Amino acid sequence: MDLKQYVTTVENWPKEGISFKDITTIMDNGPAYKYATDQIVEYAKEVGAEIIVGPEARGFIIGCPVAYALEIGFAPVRKPGKLPREVISANYGLEYGQDTLTMHNDAVKPGQKVLICDDLLATGGTVDATIRLIEKLGGQVVGCAFLIELTELKGREKIGNYPVKTLITY
Amino acid sequence: MDLKQYVTTVENWPKEGISFKDITTIMDNGPAYKYATDQIVEYAKEVGAEIIVGPEARGFIIGCPVAYALEIGFAPVRKPGKLPREVISANYGLEYGQDTLTMHNDAVKPGQKVLICDDLLATGGTVDATIRLIEKLGGQVVGCAFLIELTELKGREKIGNYPVKTLITY
Repeated sequence: MDLKQYVTTVENWPKEGISFKDITTIMDNGPAYKYATDQIVEYAKEVGAEIIVGPEARGFIIGCPVAYALEIGFAPVRKPGKLPREVISANYGLEYGQDTLTMHNDAVKPGQKVLICDDLLATGGTVDATIRLIEKLGGQVVGCAFLIELTELKGREKIGNYPVKTLITY
Repeated sequence: MDLKQYVTTVENWPKEGISFKDITTIMDNGPAYKYATDQIVEYAKEVGAEIIVGPEARGFIIGCPVAYALEIGFAPVRKPGKLPREVISANYGLEYGQDTLTMHNDAVKPGQKVLICDDLLATGGTVDATIRLIEKLGGQVVGCAFLIELTELKGREKIGNYPVKTLITY
């Protein structure tokens, strides 16, 4: 299946000059969503994932069915103020200023093998912060899986030696 | 499986007097997450769901694996400014003031049978707004499934005649 045909490109969103890749037209198509998820499930098996971690909110759409298919857990990465118990935090740079991501401090167990799932690998800021969170908890990042990779933005360089799987590249 | 044992109650969060039901301790437990999802998958089959709709962000955690299991689509309900194409909107009341939810205007097809999935049925404001969005698009709401119901808040009364399935009640 050529997944790219189900992606909708939205020009000048969220701002002038950006060609936004809208994945909702993959998700609302049952066979396309199943096919994309199954590719990541296979990858998760290859790398021996024991838990899936995904950043809100689109990382939930990608990662949760992978966790379900493998009967393993899913741990959310969220913006500050969204998780009710004790959290750890990591900052990441935005075009102007910075933002923060958090995880519950018991979300990943020491030594647990973690696959990070998200929709998009762009500059790699979100996944880099997510890796730092997981490693602070003692987890072992065995891979990072994305539906889409924007190769010009060089996110792979940012995450260095961690294995990366992407299904669609631009 | 008694799912309630995997829910963590967090007192006085997000504010004094609230006993928050934290579902992340269901999600990060593989067998519990699988068991909860499978109950909703069975319900989705019973009501003949053709697409799953879930409000951000916890509705994604509940609804996405259900869509995957049935090989049907998932359509997100999001806060304003998060969906890139043309949207429709619905308001709902909060304790002070109101908030707005949006859906892409092609997310649900006329006549399509929709199951709404979310983590929590409390006062029913979110699901009521979600029902209005789906019906504006011509979709048919065949059921509403929640992991947890807070019965004292009478959400079932708010959503009237729509079938409701909940897995854990307080």
